Amino acid sequence: MHGYREPLRIEEVPVPGIEPDEILVKVTAAGMCRSDYQLVDGYFKQVFPVELPYIPGHEIAGQVADIGSAVPRTAGLSEGDVVVVNPSWGDGTCRQCHEGNEQLCSGEGRWVGFGPPGGFAEYMAVEYRHAIPVRGNGASAPELLAPLTDAGLTPYRGLKKLRAAGKLGPGRTVAVTGIGGLGSYAVQYARLLGGGATVVALGRTDSKLAVAVENGADHAINTRETSAEAVQDELERVTGRRTVDAVLDCAGAEASVALGFDLLGPEGVLASVGLMSDRVEHRLFPFVGTELSYLGSFWGNHNDLVEVLALADAGRIKHNVTRVKLEDVNENLEALGKGEVVGRQVIVFG
Amino acid sequence: MHGYREPLRIEEVPVPGIEPDEILVKVTAAGMCRSDYQLVDGYFKQVFPVELPYIPGHEIAGQVADIGSAVPRTAGLSEGDVVVVNPSWGDGTCRQCHEGNEQLCSGEGRWVGFGPPGGFAEYMAVEYRHAIPVRGNGASAPELLAPLTDAGLTPYRGLKKLRAAGKLGPGRTVAVTGIGGLGSYAVQYARLLGGGATVVALGRTDSKLAVAVENGADHAINTRETSAEAVQDELERVTGRRTVDAVLDCAGAEASVALGFDLLGPEGVLASVGLMSDRVEHRLFPFVGTELSYLGSFWGNHNDLVEVLALADAGRIKHNVTRVKLEDVNENLEALGKGEVVGRQVIVFG
Amino acid sequence: MHGYREPLRIEEVPVPGIEPDEILVKVTAAGMCRSDYQLVDGYFKQVFPVELPYIPGHEIAGQVADIGSAVPRTAGLSEGDVVVVNPSWGDGTCRQCHEGNEQLCSGEGRWVGFGPPGGFAEYMAVEYRHAIPVRGNGASAPELLAPLTDAGLTPYRGLKKLRAAGKLGPGRTVAVTGIGGLGSYAVQYARLLGGGATVVALGRTDSKLAVAVENGADHAINTRETSAEAVQDELERVTGRRTVDAVLDCAGAEASVALGFDLLGPEGVLASVGLMSDRVEHRLFPFVGTELSYLGSFWGNHNDLVEVLALADAGRIKHNVTRVKLEDVNENLEALGKGEVVGRQVIVFG
Amino acid sequence: MHGYREPLRIEEVPVPGIEPDEILVKVTAAGMCRSDYQLVDGYFKQVFPVELPYIPGHEIAGQVADIGSAVPRTAGLSEGDVVVVNPSWGDGTCRQCHEGNEQLCSGEGRWVGFGPPGGFAEYMAVEYRHAIPVRGNGASAPELLAPLTDAGLTPYRGLKKLRAAGKLGPGRTVAVTGIGGLGSYAVQYARLLGGGATVVALGRTDSKLAVAVENGADHAINTRETSAEAVQDELERVTGRRTVDAVLDCAGAEASVALGFDLLGPEGVLASVGLMSDRVEHRLFPFVGTELSYLGSFWGNHNDLVEVLALADAGRIKHNVTRVKLEDVNENLEALGKGEVVGRQVIVFG
Repeated sequence: MHGYREPLRIEEVPVPGIEPDEILVKVTAAGMCRSDYQLVDGYFKQVFPVELPYIPGHEIAGQVADIGSAVPRTAGLSEGDVVVVNPSWGDGTCRQCHEGNEQLCSGEGRWVGFGPPGGFAEYMAVEYRHAIPVRGNGASAPELLAPLTDAGLTPYRGLKKLRAAGKLGPGRTVAVTGIGGLGSYAVQYARLLGGGATVVALGRTDSKLAVAVENGADHAINTRETSAEAVQDELERVTGRRTVDAVLDCAGAEASVALGFDLLGPEGVLASVGLMSDRVEHRLFPFVGTELSYLGSFWGNHNDLVEVLALADAGRIKHNVTRVKLEDVNENLEALGKGEVVGRQVIVFG
Repeated sequence: MHGYREPLRIEEVPVPGIEPDEILVKVTAAGMCRSDYQLVDGYFKQVFPVELPYIPGHEIAGQVADIGSAVPRTAGLSEGDVVVVNPSWGDGTCRQCHEGNEQLCSGEGRWVGFGPPGGFAEYMAVEYRHAIPVRGNGASAPELLAPLTDAGLTPYRGLKKLRAAGKLGPGRTVAVTGIGGLGSYAVQYARLLGGGATVVALGRTDSKLAVAVENGADHAINTRETSAEAVQDELERVTGRRTVDAVLDCAGAEASVALGFDLLGPEGVLASVGLMSDRVEHRLFPFVGTELSYLGSFWGNHNDLVEVLALADAGRIKHNVTRVKLEDVNENLEALGKGEVVGRQVIVFG
Repeated sequence: MHGYREPLRIEEVPVPGIEPDEILVKVTAAGMCRSDYQLVDGYFKQVFPVELPYIPGHEIAGQVADIGSAVPRTAGLSEGDVVVVNPSWGDGTCRQCHEGNEQLCSGEGRWVGFGPPGGFAEYMAVEYRHAIPVRGNGASAPELLAPLTDAGLTPYRGLKKLRAAGKLGPGRTVAVTGIGGLGSYAVQYARLLGGGATVVALGRTDSKLAVAVENGADHAINTRETSAEAVQDELERVTGRRTVDAVLDCAGAEASVALGFDLLGPEGVLASVGLMSDRVEHRLFPFVGTELSYLGSFWGNHNDLVEVLALADAGRIKHNVTRVKLEDVNENLEALGKGEVVGRQVIVFG
Repeated sequence: MHGYREPLRIEEVPVPGIEPDEILVKVTAAGMCRSDYQLVDGYFKQVFPVELPYIPGHEIAGQVADIGSAVPRTAGLSEGDVVVVNPSWGDGTCRQCHEGNEQLCSGEGRWVGFGPPGGFAEYMAVEYRHAIPVRGNGASAPELLAPLTDAGLTPYRGLKKLRAAGKLGPGRTVAVTGIGGLGSYAVQYARLLGGGATVVALGRTDSKLAVAVENGADHAINTRETSAEAVQDELERVTGRRTVDAVLDCAGAEASVALGFDLLGPEGVLASVGLMSDRVEHRLFPFVGTELSYLGSFWGNHNDLVEVLALADAGRIKHNVTRVKLEDVNENLEALGKGEVVGRQVIVFG
């Protein structure tokens, strides 16, 4: 990346050296995320500007290629091990880091692919703490592992928040709005963590909604050019109720968030993981008068990622992944920006 | 009340009869709330229209004047007992009622002063379940008891939500925005439930902020014609930090909610109890990226009110109450609409 | 029941009259529970002695046979409706009742079959609030509905507590100890609410463990004449770990609780729903040093029961029920006392 | 320490060298804890045996004497800074460490004074992550800071658990059992976090109970040679109720835990932080039937300690500290073993 709103260029760069507490990761797969498009497009420019030239890419799977001298035995890392890279690198000094939420570091934390080394490259230096060995049969294809670090992780944390809020269970309905890279995982987690809740997918593209149903959504409703009332009518037809108890918004659009609030019944909760609009807006009286809640949920922490990997290892995650080439990175970013990608595209190396 | 946006008229009406499971309450004091102004002004007209003519008034203290034949001994009610009226009357059939949150009834629930009998009258029929005997020395003046059922109750529940969210404690800062009827109680609860948190009052009127400081706020900042940045500067000066961990918004204005979000640090929580604007709006990226939460909190339930009464009985609540006459009800409503009332005005009968 | 430790006698009694707020339920099925045996045996004699002669029976399904004059329309009850009887009748005055936990009433609450009317009879008078209409296809056999009010309800609440404690999810292990009437439901809930957790059934009878595996347990371990260490060895063999994260004890024996504590890993939680022994005992240092938790969970509240009924209505519960006759009540009680019953025996009337 | 159940010997040892990520701490004060007595007495011998000779001591305040080459600027440490040593050193690989609960590390974690370097010495090497700078006026006497890392920290975490369980607030009663080193802090936290709850101190020594009352307990009851019923009588006299909602047990004796359970009302919670007996025992039926909870709480994590330091910095903690000399360490350990120490004894160096 040599400039905002410019195509990425593919160049030869030296293999990075490693510090004593780092390992060298040979990248085998790197997922492509709408936020990569947004990074280049400037969405995050004000909050965390990157120093150019820069290599993006934050969904990384790879193999251990070298191990620093200070990496302890307890880390359990050997050369050749398959690892994924936990993308949030906190500075370890703030309250958030001390809670294990390095993705929220309020000190000098960094995120892979948004400032420190990125993964659209063959090698990366990674502090050993952030490399998570993938146990199990070890046979997982790298293109399935890489997206678990964001597309597979982010909605998982969001769903955990809805569950912790006590809104999932028998007789409940949970909706997922936005069925792109994140949403196709989200419906699976909604089913898995839902404790018997009915899962409804809300999206604007029939092909994506079809994926949602394959992945476990009980019902899918196309919300393009539809009023909230029409969606409520359809909800009532398929679930017997006009409202839902919980919404996970994976779209991040003003319209999807607004629709989510319109559908929530009393004590309902909306969790936002998607990022597209700058602002959200909703009515105050029903929010207060029926005690709604709105929760931001950002990426995931180490334990969240370990749990997602455990699910994948147990064969309980369906992947919707397409292998792509590094050479096609610019076209693929464009497609992401237009919302045209079904499931996840992953760059595979070697 | 003979019409929306018309002055109330004071008229003679018959003493209401009671059902077997009701008691007759001789009203001794009725608090005046901004929502009484809003009721007449039409803010709630669409959500729950009242049948005219109608008697408003929802903050009621009184004495038991008669007891229905089916009221059980376990209710512990005798003629002459001092009671307050729990204003939320759920229909007992929905999930919310079965959780004890009758104020959120999603069935055919009612609220005193917004549809069923109101308390700007000398007598009221009250289902026995909603009359809470005031124990203790029994000497509490009725004008101090009446406002506890809303102005004293609503911010208490909001603060409990902030505490349950884990945001109150040593080294934390909690802000209260809007220092009217509710806010002057809120700062006290912020101190009482804050577990050592620093309490900051934010308001637009110096006389109200002075009450906040008397009631236990550590600092007060006048936010009229001030930017969020200027408030942050002042916060830093008095607390050492530019952010707060929790906000209780008692104003319900678009500006106060927006300011609250601007002040929240990572993982911060804003709870809304105030109702004035129709809509709220805030930025999406910091909301998601720092995992903020936004919680609606509505009035309070039976146990909340019992806890507030326990505090009052223990002498741990400072009251900011002015006794007013029923004859002046229209002027006082107008003053409430203009935000000119410091503390609470309470109509005292007899 | 004419005396403690005496056989029950089957006698003709008049159909009970009903109060204005009651309905008459024609009992169609009544489940038989180990606690019925314990009632007759005197286990509860000191805590709540019953006045003799007395009719036990607390797992009741039936049909509405008559409706009192004060039962409101919002209750949604009509003659002929299928209902189950929520067995916990609080007095409505205490904190627990106001939270919706009438089963914990600290006032003058009662439990069906342990003092107020019991269900080993053809008719029962029931306050309308405690009759829950069974919607859905209405075709559910009464012998499947009746046990849901205790055997199906009690472990559901226990599992919800384990979930609320944050101990269920991917990579976790949850154990159910005691696979009798409650345990055969418990393993199903462990799977349903487990969010991907591995479910292990621990019991002392192979035929019961076989039911557990049929009902969804991933593994079953017979603990009869086995040391805790041997169970840990077997756990390690089947799950890869020597510890579990959560235990639901349905047995209530000193040995089963002690085993549960021995198996818990750091921050593990044991919830007790079973009642057999008088006392429990465990080691203090690991309890404190690894921050274990121990939670009592009693029966279930109205919303819990509604959720269980929703699951049954959705066809997500496997029932292990045997129809028995009222005439055989004494033999069946004896078998319960000896722990010889697999699944649930239900008396079917008419 | 040259052997279990042998007096400690005071000897000259070399100043320890430091690793690149460590700092050298010049110890200025080291608190003396009953667990130091227990260490020498062998209470922990089986769980974590120490390699002899060994230097105990885990409550450490000191000054930065040297800084390793790899300690980052973000740590904010300079030579001469006053620090306290967070005593729990997790290995950073397990779920507990990733939650920030290094004191519960289930990997290869260590605790200062129970295996790795101890603080009854003039210098200690400390990984920089575990040295917490004491900001504020910096004038805090070291003998006041040192005990905050255990005696002041452990009951704080326990009280937070009671608060998180929802058992503290107006109209509630919280009891602290055992008023030694921990208990004299505990009553203060009970008041601070209690949100209006009545605080009752239960102990066996009048001089210690007098400290509890000075520190904020509303009532104190001597439980030596008293039945549970007599304590309930006294409770009723002073609080109006025979039960309490929450208990923090700082004693760790079988009798104090049993008494705590006997006093708990419905839905009550007992948290154990004290460690003295090997086992605890209590009745099963009331535990299940009234939904009691029992929570182990161990030491505290980094954020807990930061919060305690914030309280001390704000002048909101009363200290009950006696300065003692290293030379008298053996007599003082003996006094701790006998329970004869009121407040905390702290060895002051230099």
